Amino acid sequence: MIITIKRTSDAALIEQLIADFKSQGFEVHDSVGTDYHLIGLIGDTVHVDELKVKANPIVENVTRIAAPYKKANRLFHPEDTVIDVNGIKIGGNEKVVVIGGPCSVEGLDHICDLAEKVKAAGAVMLRGGAYKPRTSPYAFQGLETEGILDMVEARNRTGLPVVSELMDSDQIDEFEKYVDVIQIGARNMQNFTLLKAVGKRTTKPILLKRGLANTIEEWIMSAEYIMANGNEKVILCERGIRTFEKYTRNTLDLSVIPIIKEKTHLPIIIDPSHATGNWKYIEKMSLAAVAAGADGLIIEVHNQPECAWSDGAQCLKPEKFAQLIEKARKIAQVIGRDI
Amino acid sequence: MIITIKRTSDAALIEQLIADFKSQGFEVHDSVGTDYHLIGLIGDTVHVDELKVKANPIVENVTRIAAPYKKANRLFHPEDTVIDVNGIKIGGNEKVVVIGGPCSVEGLDHICDLAEKVKAAGAVMLRGGAYKPRTSPYAFQGLETEGILDMVEARNRTGLPVVSELMDSDQIDEFEKYVDVIQIGARNMQNFTLLKAVGKRTTKPILLKRGLANTIEEWIMSAEYIMANGNEKVILCERGIRTFEKYTRNTLDLSVIPIIKEKTHLPIIIDPSHATGNWKYIEKMSLAAVAAGADGLIIEVHNQPECAWSDGAQCLKPEKFAQLIEKARKIAQVIGRDI
Amino acid sequence: MIITIKRTSDAALIEQLIADFKSQGFEVHDSVGTDYHLIGLIGDTVHVDELKVKANPIVENVTRIAAPYKKANRLFHPEDTVIDVNGIKIGGNEKVVVIGGPCSVEGLDHICDLAEKVKAAGAVMLRGGAYKPRTSPYAFQGLETEGILDMVEARNRTGLPVVSELMDSDQIDEFEKYVDVIQIGARNMQNFTLLKAVGKRTTKPILLKRGLANTIEEWIMSAEYIMANGNEKVILCERGIRTFEKYTRNTLDLSVIPIIKEKTHLPIIIDPSHATGNWKYIEKMSLAAVAAGADGLIIEVHNQPECAWSDGAQCLKPEKFAQLIEKARKIAQVIGRDI
Amino acid sequence: MIITIKRTSDAALIEQLIADFKSQGFEVHDSVGTDYHLIGLIGDTVHVDELKVKANPIVENVTRIAAPYKKANRLFHPEDTVIDVNGIKIGGNEKVVVIGGPCSVEGLDHICDLAEKVKAAGAVMLRGGAYKPRTSPYAFQGLETEGILDMVEARNRTGLPVVSELMDSDQIDEFEKYVDVIQIGARNMQNFTLLKAVGKRTTKPILLKRGLANTIEEWIMSAEYIMANGNEKVILCERGIRTFEKYTRNTLDLSVIPIIKEKTHLPIIIDPSHATGNWKYIEKMSLAAVAAGADGLIIEVHNQPECAWSDGAQCLKPEKFAQLIEKARKIAQVIGRDI
Repeated sequence: MIITIKRTSDAALIEQLIADFKSQGFEVHDSVGTDYHLIGLIGDTVHVDELKVKANPIVENVTRIAAPYKKANRLFHPEDTVIDVNGIKIGGNEKVVVIGGPCSVEGLDHICDLAEKVKAAGAVMLRGGAYKPRTSPYAFQGLETEGILDMVEARNRTGLPVVSELMDSDQIDEFEKYVDVIQIGARNMQNFTLLKAVGKRTTKPILLKRGLANTIEEWIMSAEYIMANGNEKVILCERGIRTFEKYTRNTLDLSVIPIIKEKTHLPIIIDPSHATGNWKYIEKMSLAAVAAGADGLIIEVHNQPECAWSDGAQCLKPEKFAQLIEKARKIAQVIGRDI
Repeated sequence: MIITIKRTSDAALIEQLIADFKSQGFEVHDSVGTDYHLIGLIGDTVHVDELKVKANPIVENVTRIAAPYKKANRLFHPEDTVIDVNGIKIGGNEKVVVIGGPCSVEGLDHICDLAEKVKAAGAVMLRGGAYKPRTSPYAFQGLETEGILDMVEARNRTGLPVVSELMDSDQIDEFEKYVDVIQIGARNMQNFTLLKAVGKRTTKPILLKRGLANTIEEWIMSAEYIMANGNEKVILCERGIRTFEKYTRNTLDLSVIPIIKEKTHLPIIIDPSHATGNWKYIEKMSLAAVAAGADGLIIEVHNQPECAWSDGAQCLKPEKFAQLIEKARKIAQVIGRDI
Repeated sequence: MIITIKRTSDAALIEQLIADFKSQGFEVHDSVGTDYHLIGLIGDTVHVDELKVKANPIVENVTRIAAPYKKANRLFHPEDTVIDVNGIKIGGNEKVVVIGGPCSVEGLDHICDLAEKVKAAGAVMLRGGAYKPRTSPYAFQGLETEGILDMVEARNRTGLPVVSELMDSDQIDEFEKYVDVIQIGARNMQNFTLLKAVGKRTTKPILLKRGLANTIEEWIMSAEYIMANGNEKVILCERGIRTFEKYTRNTLDLSVIPIIKEKTHLPIIIDPSHATGNWKYIEKMSLAAVAAGADGLIIEVHNQPECAWSDGAQCLKPEKFAQLIEKARKIAQVIGRDI
Repeated sequence: MIITIKRTSDAALIEQLIADFKSQGFEVHDSVGTDYHLIGLIGDTVHVDELKVKANPIVENVTRIAAPYKKANRLFHPEDTVIDVNGIKIGGNEKVVVIGGPCSVEGLDHICDLAEKVKAAGAVMLRGGAYKPRTSPYAFQGLETEGILDMVEARNRTGLPVVSELMDSDQIDEFEKYVDVIQIGARNMQNFTLLKAVGKRTTKPILLKRGLANTIEEWIMSAEYIMANGNEKVILCERGIRTFEKYTRNTLDLSVIPIIKEKTHLPIIIDPSHATGNWKYIEKMSLAAVAAGADGLIIEVHNQPECAWSDGAQCLKPEKFAQLIEKARKIAQVIGRDI
């Protein structure tokens, strides 16, 4: 960590700041330039609060050199983390995992029917929302526990592990009991109370979606929250970020794939449905994601998108989903993987 | 709501869509243009889900004409809402309310000392965080219940009502009992479970901060969540939005003041501390906020910013805070209000 | 175009507005709702200025239904435009075109050496900047005419057509004479004077980069400027947009590929070098671009990136560039194209 | 400038990098940490190209400590620059300057009439566009030279100096002859060729608008371009930046006022018309700008906004403009200035 101090600052105040850092166990290097005096801290700065340092009136700026995360950091864990979900492996050089299903669970027959169809198309897990984060209080909010139990039955019939979104720490026991992968949604990426709770109180893998306007570093810090609280099974999921673009719902950032693999050891999967918000663009973006090295895809599938209870515009029909997987498999094989 | 349909679409499918809307009770106007066929829905479209309509393959686009909020909408509630906090009034043409205090409660003596100082400077409420949303799991997370009880004691000694941030529905009973204004932080602005909970289970005014990358409409929709669930005492608080700018922590959007007053009947207060992230810019932004018609200011104050347990860089010392209020009062008087 | 009028507006003013539009040749449909009165214009609204309509105090909002572009619009030109550059074809289902070369031309021997190397690697065109847009007035500004002439010599020796950036209308004659594809840079995407000039005064294809914070619609409108002024040979080039992300220089938006192909008939190529700003991520993003259907790639290549006169961090060495093309070719073949 | 090197890098390569910097005249401090080896450069780093340094494969990151601008830097020019326009002074503690007029010049009588009206209202300069940057090639592009000559006649009749936008270096002689303040528009803020041209070939003050998505540092760098090329009379103008907000055309960033005054010695004026895009919000934002210490306001005024040839939605009528100045004057007096 480098601290920039105004050259005109009182020498006694600089001395005191240096002494403070030394008393915290840091080795301190200082370097006096033309207009600024720099202080470099050698040691583990993960616990140093930049804003607190910056509050000192002699400080002009603070620059962090080492990443603020440790558990998620590839530097300290060089091997890929591979996460096992009922025997299905995600990450490393394993097969690219395809997760399909509706935005919302809409009833037992419906989810069981879709589960059969996504399985037939080549998906290995089933997604479906029972608790739904909706911008409007007047929109459908999900079937809640009934939806979760419908997912369980769909798993019983097809063998597909189920992924569903958790919205409150009150639901943790239910999810720990019934769900195979617990999703934390984009709008809760910095709900730190919830991150701590799933870190402490669950053993299931956590699918952590990137927030709508969050940097990759903030996203990794949210993974770090879960890991530092005890659950190291985190799968990162890019679902598009907010930009000025209006022709798509969000902007899919595929550069996260090589970056997450460089900075962390965690698996990364891509959600082209929420990213584009438009079924017409999903296949192209899925092929691109696989070409760039994604560990998985999570895609919304519905038999009658225009009747879906939520997010129909971004759903694929099962037959198009099957075609997509067919093409994606060939791309995966070109880069030395499979689906 | 206007639905744009591709001109080449099958007439039967268009007929069916129109019949569907009629069966939902809408009056439907249609208008056939050169390249598009438009359908206009007359009626209360608050409950219509745009994405569901857009999922229909014949639909090119959907445009909402009426605002998606009702409870918060000035159109249906022309008078200003004035919120009473232990006798202090916020909104309408009442005095501009100044709320001061530290980012985090750091102990009983500390908060009581600061409460005396912000009161002497002219503040009428005390802020202080007991549960802290921190980006890093390794940063100080707040004194929790102890912090809340310290705030209560500071209120006992000074008479200042207290404002503190709620991060989880588990804390609602504690806040309902001890806190005068319940803050929902920027990162929880779309934590819909929490919004519903404070709507249903609290009677205290809610200070709802704008999310870091949220539009004003989304922010009003979050107020609508609280109001539709039973608590109509919502105070909106702008605290800066994320932009590409690096010289400030966030970008303060003061245009929210006339907009919130035009679109809603709710009070709007400004937080220049989080917006700028730099004590040097707080006074200027506070004067600007008052000139633009803000109903209040919420400002971080600390006696030794460089030793604050969080966010020191953006704290004012009590004497500078007193000067700020002095100047802001004169601005308020020019525009026909007071502080 | 739909015009939303406040329901409480004076009927005479509404009548007058309708009469105005009729006198401009529009058919007008009106539809009176609960809170608003809507007016729909049937006809060619490309020339209607939304802001002017919005200035009328009775108007609440204006919504454009038809796209504001015509020449670039796929609706009116269903076939793909294929652009021919000295016999190399770009667009449609032609081979994916790879363009390689340094950020800046650094001298005759240097550019000729690189031209040989990118050709050997599989590139079919040579890029190189002679006029450089640099954020700092103290940075290297390009070799100017000397650089252009060096490119010409590199073309003589290798047969590769050359692509270079034009920054001012004064340079048009030089570019028309010597350059094969004229690039308009991201920072000049809305330099409308320059767009008109290359529309009127050049016959060479224009490679139009997307602006750093521009929407796809604005980008297509800039293509429309060039086309409406007489030069219909426009190639669109995505080079990343500005987002909050710090781990990449910009964020590559690959969803432009299916969108540009849906909305327009023009070719679209991808620049992963400027998008990521980091050579480590270029290969993955290139493979993704090809998988998503890009018509070409433009990539910075340098034999000694750490000595490049500009943008070294994002340059590939020739051998890595050759490997990239090898892999990209296999991806192209999977989706039914070639490189 | 701090260069972060991977700790595992070859010592010989580090040595060579250090030797390189020494040969360029820098003093080099190095500091070996747990995971990284840091190199600090002492000396004038304005000419060092960060991307070039970053291209070295041993380099992890580069952090600039000193600002990349010199001429505009308050550090080297502690006194405020006050710019004189035909006797009207802008900057320092001078009166707040109000500039009014239409978006586009629409003819001689029209501009002369408006000039009289804005003068009567209290404005001291006249704005009016003769060359218009329009997103659509089909929109009105300005009266060009005729418009400039109309402005000259309006100046003759009222004595108000005139401000108009320059879009191409071909127009410089005309502007140098006829215009009093030359505006560079937001979309040309990084048209570096134009910045150099107005630096070298004009003696008139330059009103430099901030780009739609540019940081304050980039904006100051564009001022630096003009100054480094010979014209030091630069007035900065904030006109709103692009954000996700839809209720305003752009988001006005008033924090630029204290920041520009801290980092530079140049005057800063505010354009609330383009920032908000809505006449209803202009007065509040103008009062806020003056309260925050702006050196001037530039406001669009039109006698019949609904008939304006461009940007009518954001125009004030002359009587509302006069009221605004009246109120703004009182705010100015409270903070020790005048209008």
